[in-house]
Amino acid sequence: MIKITLPDGAVKEVEKGTTPFAVAQSISEGLARNVISAKFNDTTVETTTPLTTDGSLTLYTWNDDEGKKAFWHSSSHILAQALEELYPGIKLTIGPAIENGFYYDVDFGEHTISDKDFEKIETKALEIARGKHDFKLREVSKADALAYYKEENNEYKIELIENLTDGEITFCDHSTFTDLCRGGHIPNTGIVKAFKILSVAGAYWRGDENNPQLTRVYGISFPKQKDLKAYLELLEEAKKRDHRKLGKELELFTFSQKVGQGLPLWLPKGAALRERLEDFLKKAQKKAGYEMVVTPHIGQKELYVTSGHYAKYGEDSFQPIKTPKEDEEFLLKPMNCPHHCEVYKNSPWSYKDLPIRYAEFGTVYRYEQSGELHGLTRVRGFTQDDAHIFCTPDQLDQEFKNVIDLVLYVFGSLGFENFTAQVSVRDLNNPDKYIGKVENWEKAEQAIIDAAKDKGLNYVIESGEAAFYGPKLDFMVKDALGRQWQLGTIQVDYNLPERFDLTYKGSDNELHRPVMIHRAPFGSMERFIAILLEHTGGNFPLWLMPQQCIVLPVSEKHENYAQKVLNSFENHEIRALIDNRNETVGKKIREAELKKIPFMIIVGEQEEADNTIAVRKHGGEDLGSITIEDFSDLIKKEINSTLKSF
Amino acid sequence: MIKITLPDGAVKEVEKGTTPFAVAQSISEGLARNVISAKFNDTTVETTTPLTTDGSLTLYTWNDDEGKKAFWHSSSHILAQALEELYPGIKLTIGPAIENGFYYDVDFGEHTISDKDFEKIETKALEIARGKHDFKLREVSKADALAYYKEENNEYKIELIENLTDGEITFCDHSTFTDLCRGGHIPNTGIVKAFKILSVAGAYWRGDENNPQLTRVYGISFPKQKDLKAYLELLEEAKKRDHRKLGKELELFTFSQKVGQGLPLWLPKGAALRERLEDFLKKAQKKAGYEMVVTPHIGQKELYVTSGHYAKYGEDSFQPIKTPKEDEEFLLKPMNCPHHCEVYKNSPWSYKDLPIRYAEFGTVYRYEQSGELHGLTRVRGFTQDDAHIFCTPDQLDQEFKNVIDLVLYVFGSLGFENFTAQVSVRDLNNPDKYIGKVENWEKAEQAIIDAAKDKGLNYVIESGEAAFYGPKLDFMVKDALGRQWQLGTIQVDYNLPERFDLTYKGSDNELHRPVMIHRAPFGSMERFIAILLEHTGGNFPLWLMPQQCIVLPVSEKHENYAQKVLNSFENHEIRALIDNRNETVGKKIREAELKKIPFMIIVGEQEEADNTIAVRKHGGEDLGSITIEDFSDLIKKEINSTLKSF
Repeated sequence: MIKITLPDGAVKEVEKGTTPFAVAQSISEGLARNVISAKFNDTTVETTTPLTTDGSLTLYTWNDDEGKKAFWHSSSHILAQALEELYPGIKLTIGPAIENGFYYDVDFGEHTISDKDFEKIETKALEIARGKHDFKLREVSKADALAYYKEENNEYKIELIENLTDGEITFCDHSTFTDLCRGGHIPNTGIVKAFKILSVAGAYWRGDENNPQLTRVYGISFPKQKDLKAYLELLEEAKKRDHRKLGKELELFTFSQKVGQGLPLWLPKGAALRERLEDFLKKAQKKAGYEMVVTPHIGQKELYVTSGHYAKYGEDSFQPIKTPKEDEEFLLKPMNCPHHCEVYKNSPWSYKDLPIRYAEFGTVYRYEQSGELHGLTRVRGFTQDDAHIFCTPDQLDQEFKNVIDLVLYVFGSLGFENFTAQVSVRDLNNPDKYIGKVENWEKAEQAIIDAAKDKGLNYVIESGEAAFYGPKLDFMVKDALGRQWQLGTIQVDYNLPERFDLTYKGSDNELHRPVMIHRAPFGSMERFIAILLEHTGGNFPLWLMPQQCIVLPVSEKHENYAQKVLNSFENHEIRALIDNRNETVGKKIREAELKKIPFMIIVGEQEEADNTIAVRKHGGEDLGSITIEDFSDLIKKEINSTLKSF
Repeated sequence: MIKITLPDGAVKEVEKGTTPFAVAQSISEGLARNVISAKFNDTTVETTTPLTTDGSLTLYTWNDDEGKKAFWHSSSHILAQALEELYPGIKLTIGPAIENGFYYDVDFGEHTISDKDFEKIETKALEIARGKHDFKLREVSKADALAYYKEENNEYKIELIENLTDGEITFCDHSTFTDLCRGGHIPNTGIVKAFKILSVAGAYWRGDENNPQLTRVYGISFPKQKDLKAYLELLEEAKKRDHRKLGKELELFTFSQKVGQGLPLWLPKGAALRERLEDFLKKAQKKAGYEMVVTPHIGQKELYVTSGHYAKYGEDSFQPIKTPKEDEEFLLKPMNCPHHCEVYKNSPWSYKDLPIRYAEFGTVYRYEQSGELHGLTRVRGFTQDDAHIFCTPDQLDQEFKNVIDLVLYVFGSLGFENFTAQVSVRDLNNPDKYIGKVENWEKAEQAIIDAAKDKGLNYVIESGEAAFYGPKLDFMVKDALGRQWQLGTIQVDYNLPERFDLTYKGSDNELHRPVMIHRAPFGSMERFIAILLEHTGGNFPLWLMPQQCIVLPVSEKHENYAQKVLNSFENHEIRALIDNRNETVGKKIREAELKKIPFMIIVGEQEEADNTIAVRKHGGEDLGSITIEDFSDLIKKEINSTLKSF
């Protein structure tokens, strides 16, 4: 008999050789029906692997990430079989599960494959799946493994096997198909009920452009047809909400080959959006006691040598800027903190002056390889909504709480309601990794945890995830499509105050080191706007909309009245446009819909006679004819429902 | 007899050999008394030089720049004589007149000279002046000139004479003193009634650091003692108003050795000031139809090759920024225009869309040698209040007028009332120097002149001063101390639209080139704030003041009431501080005076009882006890007197 410990701590005594599937059965029939993957003592095992020692067992279903991974990993075997049957003579290389689905890199030889072939492949894959073939893992000797692939004439697998140095070599069989494989499969192919080829792309063998080019076939699979349908809809919606697409449609930003990749140019509407977001945060920050500073976008190399950034990032970053006649070297600033430390150093401070809170919308530049650039989420220049708080260790607790309040206010005002927090603390087994006094670390970690608790955050504590210079709190936000984004970070820093020799005079008349807090609720304007675009699909909260409404005169006759309405909107601080073009109201409405303008104000004979406006909401809802005052109240009410005062 | 033409066109027939002084006498005794210098046919002559041909004569008095030049040039001879008499054996080199006064570069040999010696030199110089010695110019042969200075053992003058290749060599004698000199003197030393040594400094012979170091003695002189007094007072006032000094006292900005020379760090109060100025201009620009854009602070080298900036400035500027893994090179942007051209190019435009007006507070970086840096007026990074207007040639006239309106609005709101404008047009003798069609140039130049006339500007037209890419209008502002500053420029540009191949579709359905206007009413935030500080001495217009008033409770007992007053100010949108420190009201008032806070609000027993405030203006005026509402009205009235709406 062996002892199996389950995740809830329960211990089951079972016969040696019992499989994870049998353990599931012993728990409940329902679980047994759904279990598709398992982990034993931190190693992925098959649900059919006989357990032979005491140990911890975790069982996974489709609802677990590990379950999905096994599902998609197994599906890549099915894909490979389907491809081999459809295209004899192809050479398989590797085929892992990925975040959403799986792929297989294939040397198609003389065959070519295009999106016209997808259906054929899907049909073949589903046909294999319906065979309910078991996935069976078996050990093979290196010699046998090599012999098998020599027979198959597959130099890729041979290279893989030759490079395997540790542990046993396993093959996985299902149906008539065999693949080199480490394991982690679902019980049999029959569980796969929906199968979709998503795309094909080029990929170099082992990612090296000197190697032969392969074809990467992307697919996804599900245990239910309706899951696939939902996923494809989500994909469609994500495509529609792609911030690069919306950014173009809404004329927010653009890129220019000549200016350079990863360097966004903000068009008037985008610049206005940015400014509105900045003003919103500035206002809240002012109330929270922050002061704005302005610092240059370059600094002497020496500055970053002092801060430690040069030693850490110098070689991988934009290279130093030399000057024609002098021995100076400058760097584009990758961070604002060294500059803010120098601002702090401009005056002597007393404990009575602290906390000092310097804020700046500071544009920083960091080199990214061109292949890694992506719209506004991965750029080479971006503006951080940065601030640095310099406080005494005793003030840290309250300052941290205040920053959380600010971050929650930002999220709330922008419609991010679904988020979690991660508290990153020291690895207590590695105390030498960290700079600063242990008592300060303890104080700071406790302060962060207390603050997270106090503010009712849904948080997890991750040991060993702290930076060497201090613990931190990160916010993970879920967007409207269920995707996770890291937004907003609050970091405690004991390092820079040391490196810059920052001091304040304490009540004991001695000099002390302040603690620094780095924080950025948005993170960066670029990334935040990208996420906001994808979260809202461009339908920003009303207070943030570049244009809140558009006035559409029914005909030329009503242009004067339309202008009067526009002026009146201006007095009510409603941002509005007028569309006086010689087009039908229908066409104007369609275009306003595309521009995501929240309210269309139609004015014709009746409205002019009654001194009213006919209001149509974005999306189609008709609010009928109302007075401008009532409309203004309606707008104010809608704005106040999201934008509270801080 | 010869014919002498005077500046007013009058022609005098006089005997050959008549001197300018005699011509002055023949006009009026008053003029003869005041004439100190003359120009004949564009050549400077002595007032005693016999005129021997027909020609044009201009006579100068102290009130002319040319008159001052002769006065100070002559004074440098007096200085040289005084120094030679006081320090035998010294070697004179060169001694020109400068904008304010004159200097002489001297090799003092074994002697040293410090500010303790200034009085002695001044006394000696005035003693010489009182001798009423005539300045007499005489021709000498090169051999005689060299022999004279060989005798004197003066290798500097020998080098000067040896390098003289064209024209005759002249010596000037007065009293017992002789100097190598081209001429341009006042009649005699007696006119110099006030003489002041200002400073001494080191200077290399011919400005080359490989040459021997000389001592530069700076001086100034005047025809009346009271002129010197006024000048020294001005100098004292200018020192007090030095923006570097005020910037420190008012905690506006600082520099850090570590961040780098010429890269200002804006402290909270300075950043707030900048922001207020930016908001002021943004508001006016919005009304004038400008749209804000945001562009990065770097661009690919290619961008500046296209714009032509790289060919022109590349070598003398910050050097290209290389990247670690790719072949790209970037430059810090020295101008915003190339970026704005790329923004324009993002969409196709029709003539109906024009004019397009892109504005940006764009921070640019230009390398300056460290020796040339000066506070905020000469920096390496600065923020331009930049905008570029893209319009059709027909729209240029109106756009230019609109920009002038905006510039005048800016000057008016900031208390610059004394300014002139310079219209820079083509040199018609050099038509090949300029890019663009002649008809467009004619149109543009006429448009600028018409606009200047139309707006009632006090302007001059300078031929040949236009840039190769277009004509321009510059504003020269006189500050409160009478110093001239170039502020605000409006430039027409036919070049960049060519280089960037910018187009719009005309009403003829063909593609045309737009014209570009570059304009910056402030010029740069840094330079403008420096000038504003020196112009106002830190007493900014009330609307711009970081703090408009400070509330001073008479004792701790009145702190609650003081806080109530402060809150009430906030509701009235009056920017105020409170000074709750445990100090006397007298001390608090003195400190508030130093901080240039416009109003001090003193609250004690009486005020709390009457629900009033006691108001004291910066400078000392007591406005007595008034209600907060009356004070708010007073503030609004004062603001509205300078800050009109655009």
